[in-house]
Amino acid sequence: MALADPTPKCEKSSEDAPYQLIYWPRLPGRGEHIRLVLEEAGVEYSDTAHISDGMNSVLAQIDAENVGDELNVPPLAPPILKHGTLTISQTPNILMYLGSRLGLVPKRNDGSDQEVNEDLGAVYKINALALTALDGLSNEVHDCHHPIATSLYYEDQKEEALRKTKDFVANRLPKFLGYFERVLKGNEEKRAGMGESVWLYGGGLSWADLVLFQCLDGTKFAFPKAMSAAEKGGKYVRVFELYETVKERPRIKAYLASERRQKYGYGIYRYYEELDLSAE
Amino acid sequence: MALADPTPKCEKSSEDAPYQLIYWPRLPGRGEHIRLVLEEAGVEYSDTAHISDGMNSVLAQIDAENVGDELNVPPLAPPILKHGTLTISQTPNILMYLGSRLGLVPKRNDGSDQEVNEDLGAVYKINALALTALDGLSNEVHDCHHPIATSLYYEDQKEEALRKTKDFVANRLPKFLGYFERVLKGNEEKRAGMGESVWLYGGGLSWADLVLFQCLDGTKFAFPKAMSAAEKGGKYVRVFELYETVKERPRIKAYLASERRQKYGYGIYRYYEELDLSAE
Repeated sequence: MALADPTPKCEKSSEDAPYQLIYWPRLPGRGEHIRLVLEEAGVEYSDTAHISDGMNSVLAQIDAENVGDELNVPPLAPPILKHGTLTISQTPNILMYLGSRLGLVPKRNDGSDQEVNEDLGAVYKINALALTALDGLSNEVHDCHHPIATSLYYEDQKEEALRKTKDFVANRLPKFLGYFERVLKGNEEKRAGMGESVWLYGGGLSWADLVLFQCLDGTKFAFPKAMSAAEKGGKYVRVFELYETVKERPRIKAYLASERRQKYGYGIYRYYEELDLSAE
Repeated sequence: MALADPTPKCEKSSEDAPYQLIYWPRLPGRGEHIRLVLEEAGVEYSDTAHISDGMNSVLAQIDAENVGDELNVPPLAPPILKHGTLTISQTPNILMYLGSRLGLVPKRNDGSDQEVNEDLGAVYKINALALTALDGLSNEVHDCHHPIATSLYYEDQKEEALRKTKDFVANRLPKFLGYFERVLKGNEEKRAGMGESVWLYGGGLSWADLVLFQCLDGTKFAFPKAMSAAEKGGKYVRVFELYETVKERPRIKAYLASERRQKYGYGIYRYYEELDLSAE
């Protein structure tokens, strides 16, 4: 007979509570940004992508009757993160919460190597970078195939999608790639004499680097011609170097090779041959 | 002869440094959310909307050669906030920074009336609400008149704009108004016995309430027929009550009546008669 467990049952504090990701099964989507942060940090988490009633977990959260529990606001849409008694939504919001807690805030750029977390300045600089990547290389890429209405099929807005994609490839993609190249160049210059840095901010990986990686990966899937031309053109060397560097990080590499990494399909990043344009 | 000031000149810490808003002059735009937070908090701030070379201040920040100063990342676009040595961009990011610092984080909903700021949970809940309002009632309203490309005139995408607006008025507007009504109803129920609450979160005004106010105000300007019908329909009573409550707060009321409040024009919120649709 097994001995009874003498440890008193007590409520887990948020500190050691498990991280629970609630997101649509069967596509990487916006949930992928959250997964990459959790994977890089090496923490355990549950994921509705990999449980049998994952879809119902999402639907319960976004039900039109859900007013949230005592402490929390109901989410409008996934991704949703549960951690201890906290339930929060919105991709950049969850990323900021996790990135701040899980050590994805590199040191300051002023040579003092003081933890920037102390003045909270760094988290706002990193959050701005993450928001900008999501705006340009996730939301806008989504809108390329759904420029009129998310409630309609792509087939019902093909003409508009083609027109928007032409603008995206010609104007928006270079704008965002050029911006991140400039940020990386600036950080490289500021880090001169402090050791190499290939990162968007400071001397190490932040969650913004992971977001940019995923945005680039998805955009490569959606628009391989334009992205291949951008890479070969040589104007965004640092951006594509960052992409490769993140991809080779041990935990990210293991994750990408695992079954936990889902294939692109009908989410944010989609491949339609007629939208696979080259820049003019 | 005036006496020399005996106070030693020392660098201002971030704590007492002035807030500087850098945003396009001549339209409220995304900068308006930042202004409302600063006005409600009653702090002094400078605003490029009201200085003679305001436009150049914006252009210098977003110049393609700007790599940011030693401590900061360059912004891709305004609004930009300078505060002491910190320079940050992205509307929801600036709002979270200011809202957290300026007392726009109400107390917890669990009856303990403990400051939620302590565990940082509240700021993430409020940030999610602000992001959702900006997504649905600012970004999507903008996209109604510019569904294809921000680089083109409205006149060059009128057909697509009409199609997108039809979907917005029929599907998206009720979705977002319904969501915020549900959040307000939930908070009202949770606050039962703790005094009335008309707010999105907890027992007082947060920056998300100000964001929702401005989003509603702009959407009323852009789509007066649809918003008037929504108000009269009686399904979003709490949403429109929140709007009126915010509008009557002494500092907001004084601000709205002042010359600092700019008129809507060709920014996010625009009025085009042909897009002023009623829900079907």
